[in-house]
Amino acid sequence: MASETIVLFGGSGYVGKAFQRHLLRRGIAYVAPSRKEVDLLRPDSIAGFLGEVKPSFLINAAGYTGRPNVDACEDHKTECLLGNAALPGVLARVCAERELPWGHVSSGCLYTGDRGAGPEGERLGFREEDPPNFCFRTNNSSFYSGTKALGEEILADAGGCYLWRLRIPFNEVDSSKNYLTKLLRYERLLDVRNSLSQVDDFVRAAIECWDRRAPFGIYNVVNPGSVTTREVVELLERSPFGRQLIGAGKRFAFFPGEEAFRKVARAPRSNCVLDSTKLQGVGIHLEEVHEAVERAWNHWQAEAAA
Amino acid sequence: MASETIVLFGGSGYVGKAFQRHLLRRGIAYVAPSRKEVDLLRPDSIAGFLGEVKPSFLINAAGYTGRPNVDACEDHKTECLLGNAALPGVLARVCAERELPWGHVSSGCLYTGDRGAGPEGERLGFREEDPPNFCFRTNNSSFYSGTKALGEEILADAGGCYLWRLRIPFNEVDSSKNYLTKLLRYERLLDVRNSLSQVDDFVRAAIECWDRRAPFGIYNVVNPGSVTTREVVELLERSPFGRQLIGAGKRFAFFPGEEAFRKVARAPRSNCVLDSTKLQGVGIHLEEVHEAVERAWNHWQAEAAA
Repeated sequence: MASETIVLFGGSGYVGKAFQRHLLRRGIAYVAPSRKEVDLLRPDSIAGFLGEVKPSFLINAAGYTGRPNVDACEDHKTECLLGNAALPGVLARVCAERELPWGHVSSGCLYTGDRGAGPEGERLGFREEDPPNFCFRTNNSSFYSGTKALGEEILADAGGCYLWRLRIPFNEVDSSKNYLTKLLRYERLLDVRNSLSQVDDFVRAAIECWDRRAPFGIYNVVNPGSVTTREVVELLERSPFGRQLIGAGKRFAFFPGEEAFRKVARAPRSNCVLDSTKLQGVGIHLEEVHEAVERAWNHWQAEAAA
Repeated sequence: MASETIVLFGGSGYVGKAFQRHLLRRGIAYVAPSRKEVDLLRPDSIAGFLGEVKPSFLINAAGYTGRPNVDACEDHKTECLLGNAALPGVLARVCAERELPWGHVSSGCLYTGDRGAGPEGERLGFREEDPPNFCFRTNNSSFYSGTKALGEEILADAGGCYLWRLRIPFNEVDSSKNYLTKLLRYERLLDVRNSLSQVDDFVRAAIECWDRRAPFGIYNVVNPGSVTTREVVELLERSPFGRQLIGAGKRFAFFPGEEAFRKVARAPRSNCVLDSTKLQGVGIHLEEVHEAVERAWNHWQAEAAA
């Protein structure tokens, strides 16, 4: 692998940077061109670049998520549609023409809720083959989720492609896209149950799909299990230094319920549990979600202390 | 008006050519750049062109309809999404920045059916404010209709823009996009009720919106009334020369019902009635639909005889 080159689009975002760190750490050669170097909406521009680099694999971590949050997508529908639905389609065509295998950072935000309770009371997650229930077609989603689902729909017939579903990323790197950063910064939180993706676990698992030549297709790349916002907050508060990092006087405030949250949020939010047994079935494992959160928070504290 | 210039995108299509004929006939200056001259997905390419031409109005007749028919959109989802949903959004942004008024060729295909029977048994059509019932959000449409509805959704907040809804265009010009050509060529027809747009009436009415400075927004630009396929076929067969043009021996064959049609069609079809009173309310009138079909067929016969 080390003599081959990977092309990474969207390398400057939170997930893209995690891919870069992972590739660097493993000594895998890659190029991450800027939007100025490659026009991601022009097949000829992409094809020209790929013709020069001759990569063995391509990763698309580019997409439009909205700043400061997903509400911004409601005001930037065109960019959102271009980045999340059209771009994967353009890449699929270019990659198919070159017979270049590739992977796309998709999202678990096409679901809401879970699949009920399991034998031990745990919440069962949606599987890869479950049709999205939070998208344009179910007419209940944010514009963002609609475009991500449309992107998956456009890639449904694409061979040679992984769709890695990310769900609420986090790690120890302070970033506006990091779930832990959000929890620390938001004035009020909504107590909901979700699957999460430790972002460094996510990128490692994504590349491992290709390393292991796992069958192409959709994979829920999340840490097994699910957590509620309160569980994560309690975990953050547990250690004395964590408490100090949060701010000695700060108390996490919660919305009384979803209705109160909806009054301040423009777009509906996806809160959902995903099942990751398909990924486990190809031999790729992520840490249990509570443990992954605890580890990230420990690292965060260690870095803050250093 | 004659000293001002109109920019026309998509001038080489069936509707675009009708716009060109109309503008030429009226002596209105216009430029209709090719896709090579202006990259319609790049705001800077469009803005650069508009900066040179300095038009007073812009018409977007570009879009993706699929060849030979709408089924092709199911295989070209990315192009369809780019042409019908992203492009209007890109144009909206560029035009807003330049404060350039413009009009977009939208479609009535976001509806299916009608609004019930009127006092005299006539079928009532959907009005501009009725939410689409044949689109991604209602999860019953072709990919094409989904993208056209998404295009309208993206333009919902755009000021300074007309959305002219076209519905099954026809006139006396033989073309694969002309409803009369389709009726003459198809092996089997489905008897359904629809509103239609005589395409030369359509473009005249569209430009008249701007001439009269009608309020911006959505307009159903269809010939008043509705027709069934059988009614149109009977009209085509009525005159002796018309019968001769159809082919002396040819009998129009019909599917026994929608179910039989669905077996050969990949994508669901929109069949619907639209209400055009909003357009009439701003003083713009189109011929009654049966009369418009008869006139087009008479012209067709006259041209064939010449």
